[in-house]
Amino acid sequence: MRDVAIIGVGLTKFGELWDKSFRQLITEAGSKAIFDAGIEGKEIDAMYVGSMSSGRFIGQEHVGALVAEASGFSHLHIPSTRVEGACASGSLAAREGFLSIASGINDIVVVGGIEKMNDVAGASATETLATAADQEWEAFFGATFPALYAMIATKHMHDYGTTKEQLAKVAVKNHDNGTLNPYAQYRRKITVEQAMNSSPVAYPLGLLDCSPVTDGAASIVLCAAEKAKEYTDKPIKIIGSGQASDTLSLHARRDICTVDSTVFASKMAYKQANVTPDDIDLAEVHDCFTIAEICAIEDLGFVKKGDGGKAVDEKITTLDGSKPVNTSGGLKSKGHPVGATGVAQMVEITKQLRGEAEQRQIKNAKIGLTHNVGGSGATCVVHIMEAM
Amino acid sequence: MRDVAIIGVGLTKFGELWDKSFRQLITEAGSKAIFDAGIEGKEIDAMYVGSMSSGRFIGQEHVGALVAEASGFSHLHIPSTRVEGACASGSLAAREGFLSIASGINDIVVVGGIEKMNDVAGASATETLATAADQEWEAFFGATFPALYAMIATKHMHDYGTTKEQLAKVAVKNHDNGTLNPYAQYRRKITVEQAMNSSPVAYPLGLLDCSPVTDGAASIVLCAAEKAKEYTDKPIKIIGSGQASDTLSLHARRDICTVDSTVFASKMAYKQANVTPDDIDLAEVHDCFTIAEICAIEDLGFVKKGDGGKAVDEKITTLDGSKPVNTSGGLKSKGHPVGATGVAQMVEITKQLRGEAEQRQIKNAKIGLTHNVGGSGATCVVHIMEAM
Repeated sequence: MRDVAIIGVGLTKFGELWDKSFRQLITEAGSKAIFDAGIEGKEIDAMYVGSMSSGRFIGQEHVGALVAEASGFSHLHIPSTRVEGACASGSLAAREGFLSIASGINDIVVVGGIEKMNDVAGASATETLATAADQEWEAFFGATFPALYAMIATKHMHDYGTTKEQLAKVAVKNHDNGTLNPYAQYRRKITVEQAMNSSPVAYPLGLLDCSPVTDGAASIVLCAAEKAKEYTDKPIKIIGSGQASDTLSLHARRDICTVDSTVFASKMAYKQANVTPDDIDLAEVHDCFTIAEICAIEDLGFVKKGDGGKAVDEKITTLDGSKPVNTSGGLKSKGHPVGATGVAQMVEITKQLRGEAEQRQIKNAKIGLTHNVGGSGATCVVHIMEAM
Repeated sequence: MRDVAIIGVGLTKFGELWDKSFRQLITEAGSKAIFDAGIEGKEIDAMYVGSMSSGRFIGQEHVGALVAEASGFSHLHIPSTRVEGACASGSLAAREGFLSIASGINDIVVVGGIEKMNDVAGASATETLATAADQEWEAFFGATFPALYAMIATKHMHDYGTTKEQLAKVAVKNHDNGTLNPYAQYRRKITVEQAMNSSPVAYPLGLLDCSPVTDGAASIVLCAAEKAKEYTDKPIKIIGSGQASDTLSLHARRDICTVDSTVFASKMAYKQANVTPDDIDLAEVHDCFTIAEICAIEDLGFVKKGDGGKAVDEKITTLDGSKPVNTSGGLKSKGHPVGATGVAQMVEITKQLRGEAEQRQIKNAKIGLTHNVGGSGATCVVHIMEAM
């Protein structure tokens, strides 16, 4: 199995982009990544695209081919494949690109992640997002994601004494970080009081506990590690890639406060990378709701199960804490264009490990981790990266 | 790069299966393949699922995780990934499974393909299928797939003198073959006269030139070739896997009668397998419409460009011809549950190369090919297989 490195990254601004189409967004992110890598189209062996529900959002399936064409590479007939795993689609696309290079079939692969969620026809974003839950056992009965994560939050409060204030502090921290990220959807600070008093969505989650509906795209260029230095002085090696599944519906799990797919995917990635949670200098984790970040830092092994809320009180996960989490602003403040999120997380870690994260730069960052979840945790993908 | 072999196959009956759900279909195909391979759940390293539009057909995205759960493997947390490339989704899933074993990460991978197209909510099958075309340039203006393939057919008639009778003969042949396949949707012969006089859909295509709307699932178990003989005496090695893209919309192509993605994907597969079109003993090709089979046998290099119609007249592609095509009955008679089709093609070739194709067995079949197209050819995947 060959080693794989990231040699280029690109992002669009995240937000309500009423004047930009699906084609425009993915082309912008992709061309930025290709330019950053300094490659030509003819060097690209394959493309992978993560998108959760282009079929419902914009009435367009088959977006792998669309992206190859929109990028201007139709004449090259580059293989292009869409991968879907709900909100983990972006990381799944990255993982497939990684495997295709590891196999020896490809040398250079462009990975894109995208979702166009505003200015769309048909069903509401919330209704389409609910197709990532179990349609027969959850969505059909009205259990949308805020409701599902609210159940996780109440159970976590019951089992571990986690408080609504600790949830609020996650949002406050991520908004603080988002102010430092020019690509973030919300670049304004919020207070704990504002977060705690924001409009109720599903108790205990208020509006400011929830990630927003976002348009955006992200892209990375992957390269066989042995060739990466031909393109960049700062290749970022993917030293671990883990993926795991769990039941689609929440009720069938042994414990709704533990996302087993996170536990298993991270174990797989730690083992491959030959590191422990203590070796991780910073992480981008899947904070689709504030409670999700608390579960994530526990299930990734950064803190003991149940100590996630306390870790937030102790500021362990802030920019100058011992384990900075969501330096980009996370899904909460940076925005959550679902298919793009996993790739965007890898863009942030790449920038941090290159030392290019400007005002939000973590000093001496050597090893970073991304954690991307589909649905309420039926899919999880973890990547661990290190500067070469 | 490691070699990969097929060690198990499974199919559901194809048809209008009003009494079977998505979960039931994929579980049936998957468990048959797993039983055929003689493996246990704990031996499975990963799963890949090809499905074109579960989000629109059954309101369920995230079907990778759903399939892992429905198979009863939730407790094993097996990574499970959905792959989509319109009607080529099944072959794309197989290709990703193939790459994941070739990379050395996985040893045993279960691949499933599925579509539930009848008894569905929301938009019509034709409307959802049109999301595989270019929404902005084609589907929005009412150009559904019968219309697009009708344009290809009229151009082929104009350029090469192909006749409506030759199109009809493709349907007649595939129905002949379908009568011999217990899994086929339509197991009855039709006549050339019936096909030529069937209700017009889009000139020159009549109802009997079109593949049907089908429910069904198919599954294969892939294994590192070096371990395949531990499970079966008759492993079928995948000696070539090719994939290529073209423009999503028809109008942007250099020649709508040539599917360049087929040309490029098959060249890639022939090169990897180190064979020529003459070495192929039989093929399953993507006959979503009769004209598509004629283009396919040309673009795969079985006959010269423009000679596809003549080849049908000369019965080259019948069961006892020199190059049997669609021994299963093809999409026309076996049925076309879009996400399942590519996997089902690989099931047929596996059965043929094992000598288990019963009444439709091709004698001395050594090397077989599958050809699976997404949309009007924006994606094509070709696999070449050989008995080990």
